[in-house]
Amino acid sequence: MDKLHLDQHISRQFNEDLEQIKTQMLEMGGLVEKQVNDAVTAIENSDSGLAEHVLEVEVNIDEMEMEIDEACTSLIALRQPAASDLRMVLAVSKTIRDLERIGDEAQKIAKMSISLTESGGAPKGYVEIRHIANGVRKMLNDALDAFTRFDVEAALDTRKADKQIDLDYKSALRELMTYMMEDPRSITRVMNILWTLRSLERVGDHAKNICEHLVYLVRGKDIRHGHKGDLEKSD
Amino acid sequence: MDKLHLDQHISRQFNEDLEQIKTQMLEMGGLVEKQVNDAVTAIENSDSGLAEHVLEVEVNIDEMEMEIDEACTSLIALRQPAASDLRMVLAVSKTIRDLERIGDEAQKIAKMSISLTESGGAPKGYVEIRHIANGVRKMLNDALDAFTRFDVEAALDTRKADKQIDLDYKSALRELMTYMMEDPRSITRVMNILWTLRSLERVGDHAKNICEHLVYLVRGKDIRHGHKGDLEKSD
Repeated sequence: MDKLHLDQHISRQFNEDLEQIKTQMLEMGGLVEKQVNDAVTAIENSDSGLAEHVLEVEVNIDEMEMEIDEACTSLIALRQPAASDLRMVLAVSKTIRDLERIGDEAQKIAKMSISLTESGGAPKGYVEIRHIANGVRKMLNDALDAFTRFDVEAALDTRKADKQIDLDYKSALRELMTYMMEDPRSITRVMNILWTLRSLERVGDHAKNICEHLVYLVRGKDIRHGHKGDLEKSD
Repeated sequence: MDKLHLDQHISRQFNEDLEQIKTQMLEMGGLVEKQVNDAVTAIENSDSGLAEHVLEVEVNIDEMEMEIDEACTSLIALRQPAASDLRMVLAVSKTIRDLERIGDEAQKIAKMSISLTESGGAPKGYVEIRHIANGVRKMLNDALDAFTRFDVEAALDTRKADKQIDLDYKSALRELMTYMMEDPRSITRVMNILWTLRSLERVGDHAKNICEHLVYLVRGKDIRHGHKGDLEKSD
């Protein structure tokens, strides 16, 4: 298993700074996870109060991202990290951008939830939302978990889950389009379900990105557009 | 007008390295612009050959991004830039990520084009695509142009254009949904138009991000989630 040895530094303060941005990133990750959960619950239960809450919390997430990003830049400027330390800072900086975008998607879902509640709900699509939401929530949780433990194998496994989510997403799209053809009056409401599914699918994409940032951090290798062979290798 | 003074460095080699990544970024930007143009032309002219070409070129864009990103990381590790130089490298690193995502959207549009050509084309929506495509292409071009000249004022102006694109996008969505209700048999094909519009709208978002990276680079200030007052100030 790949593992980073962060305990080889001369400077203790530097270690603490690195740990600090990692901790902040994971905190932000926890909050973003909760936002996705709340947004999905809001849509499932037609709970506009919860949806409004998601919209309020979104501001905090944006602030966290800017704060952590600033901390990353300062760390690079002041401590001039090299090799794996620099990669650590850059991986955190990239990951928080993905987290912020997941927050954006949660916000979009919350807006869809409010719009759906106002129009009396959709006649179809909640099962699909629940199913795909469960998949992407697990992916996001696993991705952050892998980051906590610098566990590349777990990250590569989690990354693979995105394929199934894309398949489920496409199959749900087809089904809902057929439904709209049969009941055109439902189009506006079913479209809200479609955009929600699209947002969830993007959450999966961002969780996949986070896995790739971790692999880059530990292996020093960018695997995003690589060949399958590159990814399957254990080291 | 804000301007960076890149000529104050001690190291000439360092200046050349900085210029080099900026040049590479702008080259990538030019290629990405062409991808968006080609994808939109492919959909307008039902030109599957051109759409296939877009899919082929996409690989080059991914490679360019990884290459430039690596160059950025090396530059930080080897030259340990501070202040505005560090911000320059980080802004390039963020911008190429947006460019890569714009390339992804061009790829999606090319796929929609192929699918639409196979199904005989959509009965509606091409005017909307042309209109919104013109808007986002101009935004992208202006954003890259502003970056070339480190022109913050131009970047702030370009950033504002995204609002109009969002409005046009929403209005096009409403119109197309009404159309689908009237002609449910067209749903599958009109959905391809909807996804294309969504992709174009995202290109606008990424162009906006690029403007924000430039402002951050020149002013050292993250304006993404800031208040309006922060943005309107000339300095």
